[in-house]
This record gives sequence, structure tokens and C-alpha cells, in this order.
Amino acid sequence: MSSSAETPLHAVDLIRKKRDSETLTAREIEFLVTGAATGSIPSDQLAAWLMAAWLRGLALDEVRALTLAMRDSGEKFNPHSLGKVAVDKHSTGGVGDKTSFLIAPLAAACGVAVPMISGRALGHTGGTLDKLESIPGFRTALSLSEFESVLRTCGASIVSQTPKLVPADRVLYALRDRTATVENPGLICASILSKKLAAGLDALVLDVKTGSGAFLRKYEDAEFLAALMVATAEAAGTRTVALLTDMNQPLGYTAGNWIEIAECIALLRGERPAASEDLRELSLILAGWMIYLGGQAPSAEAGYQSAERALAGGSALTAFLKMVKAQGGDLSVFNDLKASHKPAATTVLAAWESGYVAEMDTTVIGWAVQRTGAGREKAGESVDPHAGIEFHAKRGARIEKGQPLATFYGTSETHLAEAEALLRSAIHISKESPSAGPPLVSRIITQEIAREYLA
Amino acid sequence: MSSSAETPLHAVDLIRKKRDSETLTAREIEFLVTGAATGSIPSDQLAAWLMAAWLRGLALDEVRALTLAMRDSGEKFNPHSLGKVAVDKHSTGGVGDKTSFLIAPLAAACGVAVPMISGRALGHTGGTLDKLESIPGFRTALSLSEFESVLRTCGASIVSQTPKLVPADRVLYALRDRTATVENPGLICASILSKKLAAGLDALVLDVKTGSGAFLRKYEDAEFLAALMVATAEAAGTRTVALLTDMNQPLGYTAGNWIEIAECIALLRGERPAASEDLRELSLILAGWMIYLGGQAPSAEAGYQSAERALAGGSALTAFLKMVKAQGGDLSVFNDLKASHKPAATTVLAAWESGYVAEMDTTVIGWAVQRTGAGREKAGESVDPHAGIEFHAKRGARIEKGQPLATFYGTSETHLAEAEALLRSAIHISKESPSAGPPLVSRIITQEIAREYLA
Repeated sequence: MSSSAETPLHAVDLIRKKRDSETLTAREIEFLVTGAATGSIPSDQLAAWLMAAWLRGLALDEVRALTLAMRDSGEKFNPHSLGKVAVDKHSTGGVGDKTSFLIAPLAAACGVAVPMISGRALGHTGGTLDKLESIPGFRTALSLSEFESVLRTCGASIVSQTPKLVPADRVLYALRDRTATVENPGLICASILSKKLAAGLDALVLDVKTGSGAFLRKYEDAEFLAALMVATAEAAGTRTVALLTDMNQPLGYTAGNWIEIAECIALLRGERPAASEDLRELSLILAGWMIYLGGQAPSAEAGYQSAERALAGGSALTAFLKMVKAQGGDLSVFNDLKASHKPAATTVLAAWESGYVAEMDTTVIGWAVQRTGAGREKAGESVDPHAGIEFHAKRGARIEKGQPLATFYGTSETHLAEAEALLRSAIHISKESPSAGPPLVSRIITQEIAREYLA
Repeated sequence: MSSSAETPLHAVDLIRKKRDSETLTAREIEFLVTGAATGSIPSDQLAAWLMAAWLRGLALDEVRALTLAMRDSGEKFNPHSLGKVAVDKHSTGGVGDKTSFLIAPLAAACGVAVPMISGRALGHTGGTLDKLESIPGFRTALSLSEFESVLRTCGASIVSQTPKLVPADRVLYALRDRTATVENPGLICASILSKKLAAGLDALVLDVKTGSGAFLRKYEDAEFLAALMVATAEAAGTRTVALLTDMNQPLGYTAGNWIEIAECIALLRGERPAASEDLRELSLILAGWMIYLGGQAPSAEAGYQSAERALAGGSALTAFLKMVKAQGGDLSVFNDLKASHKPAATTVLAAWESGYVAEMDTTVIGWAVQRTGAGREKAGESVDPHAGIEFHAKRGARIEKGQPLATFYGTSETHLAEAEALLRSAIHISKESPSAGPPLVSRIITQEIAREYLA
């Protein structure tokens, strides 16, 4: 036993160390994380350390230590008694990003277990839990044993983080939010992965968004985060791949709560509206990777084909409905998707000139969605399940002056007027047809690529 | 009225701004300082801002705004009803630094008012208040009206900071101490000057220590801090000069509490022990500048001569005794300085070889003094008034093996053994006579020099 294991640690020394660009040991990182989870280190010392880490950066070993210490800071979920390989997907967040509602049943229908612990809307991005809760009766706050039971019967379950799971992240995330230390790759990586790894995953597919609606706008930043997450998760024993995907316009044709669920139900029923094609394609690609990494297909391409069959054959729809029912949701709302949509106010934004939809500032669009009442500015606020925006024209579409560009649903016309003004400022109509945008998936980062990238 | 004056400020935005190397406006700095003083900004946000400021640096304008906002965060002292020019001295802290007990009566005897608000021992440096409190009955916690009354009758008064004076500094200093954000020139400057300026000074003499026992060890760092403080204080309307002075060995021949007072009383009585010469000389130089800046002499040299006359003629001794009496001190302890010294334990460290005292690591010596019981490791601990170290040989002295190097006074022989071990490690005895050390005063930084230095 080394004598250093007995030296008492002091938070102020670890702050000084990071301030002076030194690399902390795993034991030192664990000390900070335990201090955050238990409250034994005051938040001001944690804040100073976070700012030093933000400005000085974290080494790969520090990111790994931070991720593992956070993962181990509370209760963990063990999916292995299910007798299936457990695989999940995580997206870094976007506008209209509703792939989870397709991916979870697609992968489940193809034989992998999908224990998905999700988040809520905040700022310009929507929340998977808020969207699901637009289904009357749907419960996202399951205990770990209820979670296991839904997974056993349905193959997939989407729940909220329990208070006992990764408590260090709850403390550190709230602190980062109020101390301007959110946007740091090492801290983001540890926050995302600690929660995913605490769910006991065998494999993980990361959907790292790039473009105007992404959290990280610069392509290199998204690429670095993707490589960092893949390397860190693989080092923790979870097979992981990251896809860099386009977020220069909303995904699919809806952004809100119930309207996103309705768009997915239509797809699961085999409908193929043109404006949903990007959503359908990305979901099949991501599900393909999950099915492959989960050992249910010999390649990601073969996984894609399995997913496509599950969609066409209706087994994905069955899996989704089974999960909704198991989590208390009222299936009758799916009988007539339009009739189940009951917004208090509806307005339409018409094209103010003729031309092509050339650019969509998707972060601003996300804020417009938030202003309809679908999202929240601060954690804890309530959301309107029927609010959101339906887009009638996506990037590259030809539109004529006066033609409806988007329909707004929300709590009041006042809110919708604000949302309209934001959307109008976010869409650029050009006389020229715009050049083709970036591909839906621009890069796939496997373990080998990540290792090379970070070397 | 500009509309920006009405925009509400948010701490998180100001943290982000400093994180991104931007310069905060005076209004933004005031918002943070008020938030610190009133508690309306949580300490974790202040800590993140302090770390960002530490790592990104503060512009001259930010340092000035911070100093003024801190000065104005609480009650202020107004010495102008005294009908005298108010001048003070501030030292950045050292070992055996007892010039205040000579300077205050010297300057007072020469006609300036010296409203001195002092601090306590912490870490390797001693505290003026702790030293004064070794005089039985001496009270340092005076109200502002008592302070004014002592100043009126004695010309000088040395007191502790009242809780209402510069409350922002109390909050920020404690926070800096536990978040490793102490050693930053801008933050140090604002902390020191805010307290001095809140005392309403007309002029200020700064004693910035350099060398092995100084807070800032690198000469350039001390020089920069000196220039920054001079420029900032002058911008706030206080005539200021900074002297860079040597702290490569303790000042005088004592470091502790009562023993330092006793050394000063001997000097004020006209005694001139060789080991006190540096202390006597530096005190006369600093007092000379105070007398000059206070308008009581045509130059610093003339001020020095006035101070020397006040020392020789006994008027400085009279002023000191008058102040001690006015603040409740028992003058009878000065009758027999030796007999009034009552340490619980005494040990002697003999030279372990013959040679010359070549080097003294004065920070380590400071810690040795602290270990005798004279100082404190953490704020709030009590100190032993009779503890300390008496040095029998200073730098360059020839010593023979077995000859006493230092005498230790303290609470117990156990403490003294630790102090002895530290002192032994701090003193290097060489066969060769060391080269002459740096001069006592190596540089004088006036307003013009400071302006040039910072340009």
C-alpha cells in the first residue's frame, strides 16, 4: 500500500494544481467528485476548480477519471439479468430531434435491450421526457425495478434520471450552468458518459450534432468531443461509436412535444412524408449501429436493413406501443393524431417573399420553439404538451410569397407572436437555389479513429 | 441617461466575459463587489469569476474599478476633521517586520496623522495587531469614533479592521484563500488599497518586500505589484510611493510578538544594537517619505532627517507611549523589557559548524516563528504573546561551531523543537564569506515611474 494513499487531500491544493496546468491523479479527481456528491466540498471550491479546468483543459486521463468517478458516485443500473445486450443512443441535442422514439423500438424489435435515461427541454433544445409526457398518463419517473420490468417486457424503456443515479453530475451540472463552465469537452464528456455508463450499457451510439442548431457549432469542436467520448467510453469497457450528424435545420417537420410524437407514430405506421425523410434515415442509421454493436447484425449496414424490416413489418410500432402502455400511457390518443392535438392557439407564418429557403439558423429556431411554450428557459418550468412549430418548407424548398412557411401551436397568441418573430429572423429566403447542404452523417468515429484523432 | 444603465446584470454573464478575456466595465465590477458584500451573488459564482480573473488577468481599469468598488462597499473613515494630513504605510508582509511601531510615532511626532488599520499573523508572516496585543490591556478593536479620538490626542493609532469597513474584501479574501486565487497582482492590489483608501488617506507609502521571505518572491512580480498599486492609488487621488525593500533575512533581530515590541522600544529609547540597524534605517526611510508626502518636509531626505531628530529627541517614544496608553495598554511592562518577557519554554540553537551565515530562507524562518506559537496557521487561532525567535547572527555574520545562532521562546519545548528543525533547514552556513546582499531599498516607484512602467 502506497503511503500517498494515506495523505489527506485538500480541495484548495487540487484547485491550485489545475490552475497551474498540472494533471490530477485519479484519486484526486475521485476526491473532488465524492466531495461534490456528498457536499463535503463547498460549491465555491468546486466552481473555482471547474473554471480552472475550463481554462486549462483536462487531460485524457483526467476525463476518464472524472467520468468513472461520476458514474460511481451513486446507484447504478445493472441490465445484465435481462439476458440481452444493452445498447443506448445519446444525442448532444438539437431541434426537432426525436430519433429516440424511433430508435428505441427499432433496436428493441431487433433483439437488443434499450435502457434509455433521458433529459428534459432546456434553452433552445427540446426534451425527450417532455415529449413523451405529452401522451396522457405516460410516466417517466420509474424506479430502477420498474425500469427493469418494462425493459424485460418491451425491450425498451425511456425514463428520467433517478435522484440516486450519478448525484455528482446533478451537483456539477447545476454549478457549471451558473458559473459559465458548461462548454468544455472534458466536462461535457464526463457529464454525458457518467449517466450512460451508470446504466450498465454494453454498447453506445453517440449522435453528435454539428451545424447552426448544435450545441457545438464548430465542426472541429464536435469532432473532438466525439473522439473524446468514444475513447473514454471504450476505456470504460463500453463499445462505442459516434456519428457526426447535420443540425443545420430541424430534423423532420415538427419541433415541440405532442407534434413530434405524432410525426414518429406516422413513420412507425409506414407513412413517408417527404419532410420526415431525414428523420427516418438518421433513425435507421443510428438503430443500425445499435443493432450491430449489440451483436444482432454482422455490420452496421446489415443492422440498418434489420431496422428497415422492423419498421416496414410493424414490429417497431408494436414495440413502441407496448412501451407506452407499460409506462402508463393512454394508447387511444394515437387513434386520431390530429384530433389528439389540442393547442390553445394556432397561427401561421406566410412567406414574406418568393424564393428558396436558403438558410435556417436552427439555434434561433430552437428558441422560437421554446417561446411557443414547448420548452423552458430555466430548469423546473412547466411546458405546454401541445405547443410547437410545424415546418412546411425545409432547406432548399421553393416557396411563393404568401405560402405558409410554418404553423405555430401554443399557449397564447402573444407567445406565438414572439415565436413567429424569432422564426422569421432565423430563415433566410434567397432568389437563388442554395447549394446542397452538408450530408446527414458527415463522419463516423470508431474506437480506432478516435485513438488516432486524439494521439 | 444611457439605456445600458438599466440593463439588468447577471453574474454568469460577467463570469463568461472574464473567462473569454474581455474587460469588464466599472458598472459590472461594482455589481460583483456589491454582490459579494451583500451576499446577493453566491460564493460559487464569485469563485468562478475570481479564478477566471486569476488566469486571464485584470486590466488596469478593472483593477481601479475593483479597488474603488471595494473601498465603497462599507463604512469609511474620514480623518479630515483632525486638521492634519493623514498618511499611512502598508507593507506586503515579511518576517520580523515591525516598522509600524517606529514609523507611526515617528511620523506622528513630525506632524502627520497616522490612521493605521492593520492585520493579524497568518502563515509565515506576523501580525501587527498580535504584536501590539502582547502589551497587557492594549485594545486594537476600536470603534471609528474611538479611533478618531486616539488620533486626535496621539497623532497615531493602530487598530483592527471594523466589520463594517470594506466588507467586500472580507468576503473576497476568505474566498480567495480557499480557492487558490490569492497570488494575483490585480486582486492583491484591490484588497490592500481598498482598505487603505477607506481610511481616507491623503498619502500612502508602500513597503513592497522582495526576496526569500516575501509574499512575491520574483523581483519583477514585486515591481509590477508596486507600480500597479501606485498607479491605482494615485488614480483614486491618494499621493503614493512604493519602496521595494529587502526581505532576504528577518528585519531586526527578533520575530515574534512581545520581543518585537521590546526591540522597538529599545530603538525608540535611543539604543542601537547592530542587529537592529536595518530595521532602524528602513523605518527612518519610510517615515521620511510619509513626512514628505504629508507635506511636513520639502523632500523624502529632509523627512528622514526630521524622523531621525524625532527619534534622537525622544518625541517618537513619547508619541508611542501616548498611543499605547490611549488604547488601554499597561505602560509598566516597558520598565524592564526582559522581566516582562515570560515565555513558557526557552531553547537555544547552536551553530552546527563554523563559517558564515550565507543564506536565510526567510519564508521557512517565518514558518519556524509560527511554530513557536507566535503565529497562526489558520485565521481565528490564538497566538502566544511571549513566543518567537531571537536571532544572534544575521546574514554575513562569522560564527563558530557551538555558538548560539538563535534563541526560541514558546508555549512548549515540543513546539520549539519543530521550530528549531525548520530554522536549521533554513540557514545555510558557508566556509566562504557571502557576497554583499541586495540593498535595503532597491527601488523607489513614484507615480511617474509607475505610469512609465505600466505603459
